[in-house]
Amino acid sequence: MTAAQRRWRLELSYDGTGFHGFAPQPGTRTVAGELAASLATVLRLAAPPPLVCAGRTDAGVHALGQVVHVDLPSPMFAEGDDPERLARACKRLCGPSIVVTSCTAAPEGFDARHSATWRAYRYLVHDGPAPSPLLTGLAWHVGGSLDVPAMAQAAYGALGEHDFRAFCRRPSGSDPGDPITRRVTAADVAVVEDPATVAGRGRLVRVDLTATAFCHQMVRSLTAVLVAIGRHELTGADLVERLRTGDRAGLPAPAPPQGLCLVAVGYG
Amino acid sequence: MTAAQRRWRLELSYDGTGFHGFAPQPGTRTVAGELAASLATVLRLAAPPPLVCAGRTDAGVHALGQVVHVDLPSPMFAEGDDPERLARACKRLCGPSIVVTSCTAAPEGFDARHSATWRAYRYLVHDGPAPSPLLTGLAWHVGGSLDVPAMAQAAYGALGEHDFRAFCRRPSGSDPGDPITRRVTAADVAVVEDPATVAGRGRLVRVDLTATAFCHQMVRSLTAVLVAIGRHELTGADLVERLRTGDRAGLPAPAPPQGLCLVAVGYG
Repeated sequence: MTAAQRRWRLELSYDGTGFHGFAPQPGTRTVAGELAASLATVLRLAAPPPLVCAGRTDAGVHALGQVVHVDLPSPMFAEGDDPERLARACKRLCGPSIVVTSCTAAPEGFDARHSATWRAYRYLVHDGPAPSPLLTGLAWHVGGSLDVPAMAQAAYGALGEHDFRAFCRRPSGSDPGDPITRRVTAADVAVVEDPATVAGRGRLVRVDLTATAFCHQMVRSLTAVLVAIGRHELTGADLVERLRTGDRAGLPAPAPPQGLCLVAVGYG
Repeated sequence: MTAAQRRWRLELSYDGTGFHGFAPQPGTRTVAGELAASLATVLRLAAPPPLVCAGRTDAGVHALGQVVHVDLPSPMFAEGDDPERLARACKRLCGPSIVVTSCTAAPEGFDARHSATWRAYRYLVHDGPAPSPLLTGLAWHVGGSLDVPAMAQAAYGALGEHDFRAFCRRPSGSDPGDPITRRVTAADVAVVEDPATVAGRGRLVRVDLTATAFCHQMVRSLTAVLVAIGRHELTGADLVERLRTGDRAGLPAPAPPQGLCLVAVGYG
């Protein structure tokens, strides 16, 4: 950060449906790419500014409380710094898929990624007899009727500090034997009692996971195992066993991206 | 219906976002147009069969329990009548935006429109400080915080048989003085207590109206007035007065289509 720059903290919501994830990738539509281009347009910057987010989301994954920091020239406008004007302009430029819900001066030493102390994700599963067209981009439709109490009980098995190697996409270059340790602080599965009718017939089941940090595809991998438990194809003991051994073999593929949403990030 | 035909009762759900409404219109994408074309393809018909629905929906309006009847050659396949195979094939051809949730032989004398004795619509209003990108196609975002108890109380004023002329788009060719009488049997406004997080900050408010029949844009017009009441721009007495006089002047424009969903139709 140069002397003429100031760090801002942005909160944003987005519908991940039309994006190839958060992180910028040349030639594809990404959340960071679109937001950074909007910032560059509004502030007449020579290049899109780098954005750092609290939790990278994959293609099709949504966010309601993503936190981002960005270093911008100060004053940002000829008239001075005006974060509300910036947020309004971004909203206009990004369209309805990305909404900047707040823009405030970042506290001293703030880093959207490294200062974050927890992340909360929600995964929505629809267990109706037929898919609901109103949930196409928001939930994973699974046939049949899930045993939600069994899923809720099994989810407790993920609480605490574990090696989540069996439930992650292994980072490139890492050794398959390396543990991937994370601390899960909340794990809750329940039926959404009043889902505003969008589910049609069947139930909407929410899988809520909070952790100090997550590894890649961890929520989707855990959700796929919880759904298999809800179908009585696996048991809670299987989940605990895989946390112990780190063995991924035979586990179901991660749940699809559209059911996942980063709902909140905590600091301090 | 010719001797070689049989009448079927279809139930369908659809996301109205990408459609110019239910009714077929040459050169535009409509729900009936897409479904009839799929039926023609599956059954190798010379032309798309006419569909009759319980409640016509406008562009952008959704349905979770639309009922349709259609007369099809019998047997429909060389192997005989197979409504489940038909529903599966329609699902495959129509894609995720239209889902045929059931297909059964229609009872003697059944007419999806004329046999229906009630229709239930739900309108979703989001009163958060910022719009939620996950609700873009599902709710009407209104700023500020709505007085939901005032809306709920005012909605009772619509219960019973009234001249809804002030709350309808007048049928072409009709006289402005002609009453448009309908019977509302349920009118309920409430906060959705557990909306599966899709709302982000703010609340999701549901407006539920059931009537023996509705006139054009009646739910959207009533909802716009109820929202104005929730903002203290109008009162419940204004609503009652307009039901008495039929005067539309100065009332707000109908609420936008994306918040509306036909949720159920009753027979017998």
